[in-house]
Amino acid sequence: MTKTTEHLGKGSDTPVGVAILGQGTVGREVLRILLANKDSLEHRVGGKLEVKGVAVGDISKPRPGVDPDLLTDDAMELIKRDDVDIVVEVIGGVDYAREVVLAALRAGKSVVTANKALVAAHSAELAEAADEAGVDLYFEAAVAAAIPVVGPLRRSLAGDQIVSVAGIVNGTTNFILDAMDTSGASYEDMVQQAIELGYAEADPSADVDGHDAASKAAILASLAFHTRVTKDDVYCEGISKITSEDIKTAREAGYAIKLLAICERFTDANGQEVIAARVHPTLIPKDHPLASVNKSFNAIFVEAEAAGRLMFYGNGAGGAPTTSAVLGDLVGAARNKVHGGRAPGESTYANLPIASFGDVLTRYHVDMRVEDRIGVLAEVSALFAKNQISLRTVRQEDKGDTARLVVVTHAAREADLAHTVSQLKELAAVKEITSVIRLEGE
Amino acid sequence: MTKTTEHLGKGSDTPVGVAILGQGTVGREVLRILLANKDSLEHRVGGKLEVKGVAVGDISKPRPGVDPDLLTDDAMELIKRDDVDIVVEVIGGVDYAREVVLAALRAGKSVVTANKALVAAHSAELAEAADEAGVDLYFEAAVAAAIPVVGPLRRSLAGDQIVSVAGIVNGTTNFILDAMDTSGASYEDMVQQAIELGYAEADPSADVDGHDAASKAAILASLAFHTRVTKDDVYCEGISKITSEDIKTAREAGYAIKLLAICERFTDANGQEVIAARVHPTLIPKDHPLASVNKSFNAIFVEAEAAGRLMFYGNGAGGAPTTSAVLGDLVGAARNKVHGGRAPGESTYANLPIASFGDVLTRYHVDMRVEDRIGVLAEVSALFAKNQISLRTVRQEDKGDTARLVVVTHAAREADLAHTVSQLKELAAVKEITSVIRLEGE
Repeated sequence: MTKTTEHLGKGSDTPVGVAILGQGTVGREVLRILLANKDSLEHRVGGKLEVKGVAVGDISKPRPGVDPDLLTDDAMELIKRDDVDIVVEVIGGVDYAREVVLAALRAGKSVVTANKALVAAHSAELAEAADEAGVDLYFEAAVAAAIPVVGPLRRSLAGDQIVSVAGIVNGTTNFILDAMDTSGASYEDMVQQAIELGYAEADPSADVDGHDAASKAAILASLAFHTRVTKDDVYCEGISKITSEDIKTAREAGYAIKLLAICERFTDANGQEVIAARVHPTLIPKDHPLASVNKSFNAIFVEAEAAGRLMFYGNGAGGAPTTSAVLGDLVGAARNKVHGGRAPGESTYANLPIASFGDVLTRYHVDMRVEDRIGVLAEVSALFAKNQISLRTVRQEDKGDTARLVVVTHAAREADLAHTVSQLKELAAVKEITSVIRLEGE
Repeated sequence: MTKTTEHLGKGSDTPVGVAILGQGTVGREVLRILLANKDSLEHRVGGKLEVKGVAVGDISKPRPGVDPDLLTDDAMELIKRDDVDIVVEVIGGVDYAREVVLAALRAGKSVVTANKALVAAHSAELAEAADEAGVDLYFEAAVAAAIPVVGPLRRSLAGDQIVSVAGIVNGTTNFILDAMDTSGASYEDMVQQAIELGYAEADPSADVDGHDAASKAAILASLAFHTRVTKDDVYCEGISKITSEDIKTAREAGYAIKLLAICERFTDANGQEVIAARVHPTLIPKDHPLASVNKSFNAIFVEAEAAGRLMFYGNGAGGAPTTSAVLGDLVGAARNKVHGGRAPGESTYANLPIASFGDVLTRYHVDMRVEDRIGVLAEVSALFAKNQISLRTVRQEDKGDTARLVVVTHAAREADLAHTVSQLKELAAVKEITSVIRLEGE
């Protein structure tokens, strides 16, 4: 639905009114930079900007540098004011944020949000409200903070067909895995260090269990494939089972282990074009551009039919990088208020079916302890063959009483691979499956 | 100047008419994908697209897959047609391209161009014509083909302040330098190989002398610093003096040599905020993200105040990648025709002075052959000290009759460094200056 008449633009005389919801790390930084760089930002908008109010939970708390007249604890009243054109939501959380963002959109305000959980859970409802009111919903900061990826997928690559997106989209887990690789230390120690250095929350589960990455995978898949994908559609496995031994084995074999958010379009066994999104620890070759993304950096690797391979790299979290993305969106939303026009909204025209995880093609790296006797390798190989899985490499190593057997498969259906591993566990010759890690990027 | 009334949008019923100028590698691919993916593209535009004509030089040449009724050799007539809304210029060259693009803009058509030489030479004139007519000028493909960088600088980073941009923006020279590094072969041999493999033109001078990179540096600096920068403002030095010995020395010291386009904002000796753009071979540490950009890949490294360090990586040339960028722009231009609104245009409000190259701060890696006797090091060091240049590392190596002396300086004014090197040449103790290469990224 095109509502051209509502986007005529207000012209450049009346200032564009901005309401900021939230004064946490990001909210404070958004307000600070907005005031400090007002001149530059107004030049880029082509019109005046004015902060009309700042909604906070506790109005009595001292907030140095914030004009007290701007403060309110009534977000609902603020967003409905006639002189507010754009609402910046940096409260976080899902339920209340959903309520205020929906109210803002329905009141005809464009919304800029950094809230990945909100967008991943309620994109359909939000997009519908924005469309009905003929306003913009921007959320560049929701995926990988300052790294431009929402914009490039929505605009720069709008003439191309995306084949896959694979991203390191959670800085906490990348910090932990990279620190384990660099120091040889255990998962537990590095989680502790991440908490102490402020890279992880005291309860790190949203990061280490992959939920944060899964929200971002849902957003990326929606954008890449023009299909509505929510977090519930994303297969999700965290990094808590990765041991320092896994990392060492990976390194020796020429791989890095990264928590990847993988979104892909493929043709399933019935010849149907489908998409899938998944998050899990992944072995990638050391010479893959994603392998050298260290510390808490993020990177998104995109493969498109015409563009080929692209990568976007940078700071995926933190107050300043998130603010950069929020203010970039704010300039875009304000430009549209001044000059008319609308940003590309949710695009779901392709509406591709979402494959079940079992139908996704993956490759397994299986590390196991087996009996050290003649015939074991034949028995194990036969099991893979019976399940139609071909092996790419097999490495056997004597370990005294037992042998270590490392098998890397070719691509096969996830369900067949998982089934094979459960059958391997039943073999008397197999003493222990030490680790099973998927492999990508070759 | 805001001409809101001209951007009301034509609504989604009348198709957006497209004229394609040129049927070289990119022109053919643009037409092919535009027709093959018409449905997807129209969904993304939110309206119909229709190719109204294709202008070529020789209308009698057989062009398989092109509807003969679309062909014309009268580009000027085509672009002025009432049913043409957007002109895609993929002819290349400067003078004739300038003429048709200006005519198209003045006739009220939005223009999408992949022509870096045109944009780098005539941005002011083109931007003015676009602004007067209230239409869009898009040129994502002009810098690093499919890698989204114009869009991110214009939009995603619109809320941030860019500090510097350093890019590998010429695939030919990156291929040559990478091949020299990998094989140990000479510059001449690798240029020959690049020509044979189609990475370089038979006359490779535009690439190897740095002119192509300088055009892109001008465009990047303009976008990053909101200041008009043309190719003439860019200091430019090619890679033809780089020897296999330089590459070997660099590798041993932990560096890669890349041809970088560097755009920076800094405060000069008078306390004035200035900008500069330069292209030259550059030593960068092996662990810098740009160092691992191999083969003919391109990458643009951006440092911004809030976002921090970002990098965009991908295919910087070729028919398909260039087409991806052109079609992305076409979708954007068509969206504005349907829904109203305008893309961000040229932004020159900051209008910062362009520093002379001599005032830029650089660091030198100087490799020289000196007399092997007591006092030489003191003499050389004294010369640097006299010119207020402090040394970071000094390495001396016995080579029989003479010694090899490798000096790496701290940052100093380019003019002082260049002057020091010319004075070094006068010293009796200095037999030969083997190489002088600038160093960045530490």
